[in-house]
Amino acid sequence: MKINGKPMRTIWLAENGWAVEIIDQTSLPHVFETVTLKTVDDAAYAIKAMLVRGAPLIGATAAYGVCLALREDTSDEALEHANSLLAEQRPTAVNLRWALNEMVVAVRNLPREARVAAAYQRAQEICDADVETCRMIGVHGLEIIKQIAAKKPAGTPVNVLTHCNAGWLATVDWGTATSPIYQAHDAGIPIHVFVDETRPRNQGAALTAYELGSHGVPHTLVVDNAGGHLMQKGDVDLCIVGTDRTTATGDVANKIGTYLKALAAKDNNVPFYVALPHTTIDWSMTDGFAIPIEDRGPDEVLTMPGRLPNGTVVTVEIAAPGSPAANPAFDITPARLVTGFITERGVCPASADGLLSLYPEQGKTPAMT
Amino acid sequence: MKINGKPMRTIWLAENGWAVEIIDQTSLPHVFETVTLKTVDDAAYAIKAMLVRGAPLIGATAAYGVCLALREDTSDEALEHANSLLAEQRPTAVNLRWALNEMVVAVRNLPREARVAAAYQRAQEICDADVETCRMIGVHGLEIIKQIAAKKPAGTPVNVLTHCNAGWLATVDWGTATSPIYQAHDAGIPIHVFVDETRPRNQGAALTAYELGSHGVPHTLVVDNAGGHLMQKGDVDLCIVGTDRTTATGDVANKIGTYLKALAAKDNNVPFYVALPHTTIDWSMTDGFAIPIEDRGPDEVLTMPGRLPNGTVVTVEIAAPGSPAANPAFDITPARLVTGFITERGVCPASADGLLSLYPEQGKTPAMT
Repeated sequence: MKINGKPMRTIWLAENGWAVEIIDQTSLPHVFETVTLKTVDDAAYAIKAMLVRGAPLIGATAAYGVCLALREDTSDEALEHANSLLAEQRPTAVNLRWALNEMVVAVRNLPREARVAAAYQRAQEICDADVETCRMIGVHGLEIIKQIAAKKPAGTPVNVLTHCNAGWLATVDWGTATSPIYQAHDAGIPIHVFVDETRPRNQGAALTAYELGSHGVPHTLVVDNAGGHLMQKGDVDLCIVGTDRTTATGDVANKIGTYLKALAAKDNNVPFYVALPHTTIDWSMTDGFAIPIEDRGPDEVLTMPGRLPNGTVVTVEIAAPGSPAANPAFDITPARLVTGFITERGVCPASADGLLSLYPEQGKTPAMT
Repeated sequence: MKINGKPMRTIWLAENGWAVEIIDQTSLPHVFETVTLKTVDDAAYAIKAMLVRGAPLIGATAAYGVCLALREDTSDEALEHANSLLAEQRPTAVNLRWALNEMVVAVRNLPREARVAAAYQRAQEICDADVETCRMIGVHGLEIIKQIAAKKPAGTPVNVLTHCNAGWLATVDWGTATSPIYQAHDAGIPIHVFVDETRPRNQGAALTAYELGSHGVPHTLVVDNAGGHLMQKGDVDLCIVGTDRTTATGDVANKIGTYLKALAAKDNNVPFYVALPHTTIDWSMTDGFAIPIEDRGPDEVLTMPGRLPNGTVVTVEIAAPGSPAANPAFDITPARLVTGFITERGVCPASADGLLSLYPEQGKTPAMT
């Protein structure tokens, strides 16, 4: 998508052909800065400190992290070290593990001298595949938006509520939850997005509002508390969110607070869709509550970055001095609260049968027996 | 309750015997400052700008606002002007209107020379009655906490989740939702409170965490998104919140986001109680969705006050530049999601019959026919 009118991806190779450039998303929306990753430790740090975030982009960054590791040491030990180092940075995101596994499979049986080139090729493929996957999620999700638009008076916007950032900044391009939104907007369908600010890291206020604004999509920022009221008032036509991990039975681990919006959607008969690439499906899991939930540090709750009137970016303490805080990063939205999944292969019910109807090949794997 | 070891109320007469002193709650938790109100306009501003907030304290401040108005002009016109000026500052809070009506009744049939003294007396009575009301809410709510404690292993804390600030800073003393908590803590029952930060004004992080910490009650600050997850995990034994207006049928208007927590409590079989003085019951209303919901300005969403490392308090912009924002201040929790009301007269179901069982005299009023 575009920033300042310039088409960009969220991760790309530097001019030297081997270093990896990313947008430092912790500085958005205040400052637009790119960062160059030169080592696997740089990549691990970028994932841990959330310079990159969003399941697909974390996977892409991890893939390039393996490339950077192999560039320094092509041994099996280095590959294994990179794999485990990168995997442990974010325990909840399943396609971090998927991408790392893809990288290991791509290089492990190759002679050492062939590994670096093969790794870079596979990482590039993972990125390109993500772009195409997100584009197709948009193609399928667009049909849902078209159906809702057809039932509304002409010219009335379709109101979408989204949580966190499952936008193009969370992927390589297009986004997952936002891909149908961008495609509807580009197709001339009036659309308006309620953006949950998404405490504690404010990815909605900082990233989703930023990218929608950059692309010209009408939107309104609201606090996380507001969504239930908006749905009670009939101001929301549908919710679309992303997911960090989805079980084979349709339970969804996504940013903390997603579950509350799903409850409100159910209570007000608002369709609640989860947009996902197949890489976020964990076919080995059948119970969402078995997904490990990352506990992050209290500082994200106790402090807030922002701009002073002179433009300086500072971090302020916002809570009562000495307050203890807890910071669980994800919650589980049970399949029963999800209207459907929007995937790169189409739309399906949030259930084992629904997922298998789109991914029949998974019905034959040992994990599903 | 205590601040820095010193027992305080939230509103009191200045040493001169007529001016009114309050705590500027917009400066908490960063700075503890008191403000002196000398005119009805001062009182109106304190209510509008939320130097005082919380339904009972708003009512008490409005009552003293009438005193300040009459002190300058004892005419019927001045009384009427003060009444309408103060009433319009916060459209949702019903006991703002209740307190103003009490003041009008107390003085309207008196000769002008007797009005000021009568007004001050009635305002003092309103404050003292609020303290006793809140104390009795605590006495009745304590029984609920005791019952839960009795079912837990000895020494295991009872975990309460609360939203916004229905603490003593919202009343004259004790608080409503916090009164049972303080009384349990003082009675030696192990208790721990999850405090929702309560965006956009952060009354949980700024006020509830502050007052619980000042009184020594163990607590953990969480973002508003976290409560559903905590309930899914079984980490919450009960929710207690306050209310700004309650219908005769048991629907509850409270701080935006309350409805989402009530949905999560219902979904996880966690008892969800609303603590209220009878003054927040609007006996004329039978449908919560008819309660007017205040829309506040976007700045509360787009900015955040906080402390710099050097202690200076600043306000920072936290969202993407140019983002539009909406800021509804309350939502409606339907009676079906409320386990019970904790009032100064006892605990009852959240229903017309439940409320009438505690307030049978209301069954005879025209409003209920």
